Amino acid sequence: MTYDHLTLHTDKYQINMMFAHWMNGTQNRKAVFEAYFRKLPFGNGYAVFAGLERIISYIQQLKFDEESIAYLAEQEERYDPKFLDELRRFQFQGSIWSALEGAIVFPSEPLVRVEGRIFEAQLIETALLNFMNYQTLIATKAARIRHAAPEDILMEFGTRRAQEADAAIWGARAAYISGFDATSNMRAGMLFGIPTKGTHAHSWVQDYDTEEEAFLRFAEALPDQVTLLVDTYETLRSGVPNAIKTAKWLETRGKRMQAIRLDSGDLAYLSKTARKMLDEAGLSYVKIVASNDLDENIIFNLKAQGAAIDSWGVGTQLITAADQPSLGGVYKLVARERGEKLEPVIKISGNPEKVSNPGSKEIYRIINRETGKAEADYVALLGERDIAQREPLKLFDPIHPYISKNISEYEAAPLLHPIFDQGKQVYELPSLEQIRGYHREQLSQFWPETLRKLNPEKYPVVLSPKAWQLKMDLIEQHRE
Amino acid sequence: MTYDHLTLHTDKYQINMMFAHWMNGTQNRKAVFEAYFRKLPFGNGYAVFAGLERIISYIQQLKFDEESIAYLAEQEERYDPKFLDELRRFQFQGSIWSALEGAIVFPSEPLVRVEGRIFEAQLIETALLNFMNYQTLIATKAARIRHAAPEDILMEFGTRRAQEADAAIWGARAAYISGFDATSNMRAGMLFGIPTKGTHAHSWVQDYDTEEEAFLRFAEALPDQVTLLVDTYETLRSGVPNAIKTAKWLETRGKRMQAIRLDSGDLAYLSKTARKMLDEAGLSYVKIVASNDLDENIIFNLKAQGAAIDSWGVGTQLITAADQPSLGGVYKLVARERGEKLEPVIKISGNPEKVSNPGSKEIYRIINRETGKAEADYVALLGERDIAQREPLKLFDPIHPYISKNISEYEAAPLLHPIFDQGKQVYELPSLEQIRGYHREQLSQFWPETLRKLNPEKYPVVLSPKAWQLKMDLIEQHRE
Repeated sequence: MTYDHLTLHTDKYQINMMFAHWMNGTQNRKAVFEAYFRKLPFGNGYAVFAGLERIISYIQQLKFDEESIAYLAEQEERYDPKFLDELRRFQFQGSIWSALEGAIVFPSEPLVRVEGRIFEAQLIETALLNFMNYQTLIATKAARIRHAAPEDILMEFGTRRAQEADAAIWGARAAYISGFDATSNMRAGMLFGIPTKGTHAHSWVQDYDTEEEAFLRFAEALPDQVTLLVDTYETLRSGVPNAIKTAKWLETRGKRMQAIRLDSGDLAYLSKTARKMLDEAGLSYVKIVASNDLDENIIFNLKAQGAAIDSWGVGTQLITAADQPSLGGVYKLVARERGEKLEPVIKISGNPEKVSNPGSKEIYRIINRETGKAEADYVALLGERDIAQREPLKLFDPIHPYISKNISEYEAAPLLHPIFDQGKQVYELPSLEQIRGYHREQLSQFWPETLRKLNPEKYPVVLSPKAWQLKMDLIEQHRE
Repeated sequence: MTYDHLTLHTDKYQINMMFAHWMNGTQNRKAVFEAYFRKLPFGNGYAVFAGLERIISYIQQLKFDEESIAYLAEQEERYDPKFLDELRRFQFQGSIWSALEGAIVFPSEPLVRVEGRIFEAQLIETALLNFMNYQTLIATKAARIRHAAPEDILMEFGTRRAQEADAAIWGARAAYISGFDATSNMRAGMLFGIPTKGTHAHSWVQDYDTEEEAFLRFAEALPDQVTLLVDTYETLRSGVPNAIKTAKWLETRGKRMQAIRLDSGDLAYLSKTARKMLDEAGLSYVKIVASNDLDENIIFNLKAQGAAIDSWGVGTQLITAADQPSLGGVYKLVARERGEKLEPVIKISGNPEKVSNPGSKEIYRIINRETGKAEADYVALLGERDIAQREPLKLFDPIHPYISKNISEYEAAPLLHPIFDQGKQVYELPSLEQIRGYHREQLSQFWPETLRKLNPEKYPVVLSPKAWQLKMDLIEQHRE
């Protein structure tokens, strides 16, 4: 799969800043940026990080080819041809640290840290945020749906309502990371190795004179994969009885029908009644699949009503994250080169929660040794001694610093891992199955109160005393 | 730009139905499908059709290559190798009629009609809906924003919050169709010829010791393209005064600063005050650009407050259509081959609005000759004589058939145009500028009451008496 010209998948202001730096001779000045989001989506208690594989592939392919250069040459900015030559020679030489896909992450902690020339760190902002924001959003939505139906089969069915083709496939992948079992999208299946599932549409039934004939023809063609859509005419009066006939016919061939699918109407009532009809016909092995604009709340409510549904096809609401279709991830300068060293910088804002945390930072997940559960995420400046040597820590709330607690018996797991070191990829991509395993493992480190869907307990993300002091000092400096 | 493997950008159930048809020997049976949506998004009075160019390029590139075949061969369905051979030979041979990009369209009228072998008509459903749904959604959202600011400069700035890369570029194109002036996305600019715009980020300012120095350095580098972001520290106390100094310095070089950009805070108050400061400094030519989570309602309200904003950068809310992030377009079988001819079919539903309109249909926009304005869209069966010969028509509401009116002095413009004829493209792609012109022309055919943003007048989409009778007959047949 090629991503032609993703190098230009950036905002023009990045190119303009690159040009202005080049004009000023500052293009090779070092800078550190951190990407994070400020607010959790959907009222959830955590997010599931995703997008790294796509970011890596994008970085690996960064190159201004002649077509892109020709396009840049014709802009109204009239970039100097020597600048365009610089772009022709462009190679990403920066370093990147990132959370791993499937990780449980929280607001206001860096998820990706980029250290490089301002020239390259600026170029990649737009695409990096685009991929991280969308994939993290969908992985988080999928985790909520998985939480509502922990034991059931979950299938991603959203392609036709996705926001274009990339969203369909990367969204399917993000859902799979968070525990979905399959997708209907064949391209996602081929590119990523996600299991694919599919039954038939209403048009299959409409193309025959009777529903019974349509079912039989389908069962003849795919006798091992028979899931019949039973709501083309009347679910309980024709669909389910015809499906039962088909299942009985399959039994005479030594085959078992897999399932029926309900796609409209009152899914609680229909599934319970259909279950009864199937059971009374001796078909308790036939499963019931439901689809029709489902999300975690509808699934939760259907289950509370005792709906007899084994498997859920989730489309629009998942693939567009319909109740909050964007994650507001940002990418902020935290340090700049001055003389030989990196100097921390802050972004002040009238809104206190928007004031950035200055300096290059490391995140540690503090695991209580006794319980094995995560106590807090600890945001420290690079190379802080206390945390590196596992000395007792004071955990305090950066918004309300008077709330604090001490911890001494802990493990500290770094959240960020080296991905690129001076332009060279140093991270080996895990398989999608490994990512799913990592995600499950991450979930097991949290209390149910953090993971619950409604009104979750707020998980603490704390600044180290040093990081906190640096922030206070820089705010004070700005005040003067 | 290549779209590798978009052939598999389809739901598995399409492949399964293709296989089942092939097993039954019915794969070459003709079928007619129509794509339409049932409900307008955002409470708008119309939608703006988009997605056709992408659909055409997708159809042109349909081909099962060996990699796709190998992937299909390993599925649990264990497709017959002879079926896979059939796919290897697959060529799209169907015919497609479609509304043109930029057209004003309404619910429950076919926007795309596909006539072909069931084999191919089924395959393309998923991608066709995916492209039509997303691009039509964004074009419609953009039209609402354009309506709120008819004379201002509108810029699409949403890439970092878009639902992955394709959404960013196709969304930028859809916005441009509906009258946006530019995008920040360079790839969209290169691929589609959309003008691109960009200024600088907060990081540019943070990378210098003072805001004043940052502004001067930027102005030196791009003296003809200076738009300065003035809210990194304090908009009115430092940003605007420093921008004024920069503008004065530019004047000494014989240059004029283009604009300042406001990206936070109270945009009404800040823009009015900044306007006053600029004017008092003799800089009335310097424009004011605003950004920060804008949508049509915020823009409308800011304008009502007299905000002095000339140009709007619209991101997240546009590119994700945040208040309704999907258009529920569907693709329904309306006729099937029986013997030598096509026989109309209907899809019955417990929900009366979901009962489909049977038969292959043509849509005519009925333009009143006296006013030049559109009176209704007239949905007729293919080849109806009355409308073809412009005989007097009775327009009646299909939901409430007792509401009707007669019209005799009218023009009838077909909404659907031939795009593919038996596999051959017969439609020449217009330029994006032509599409924008067509969209403006379409808008001019409607009364302001249909076009307004809030509580628009419902525009009539009526069935011809013949199409209506056919529907009634088929409903009656099903009842028996």
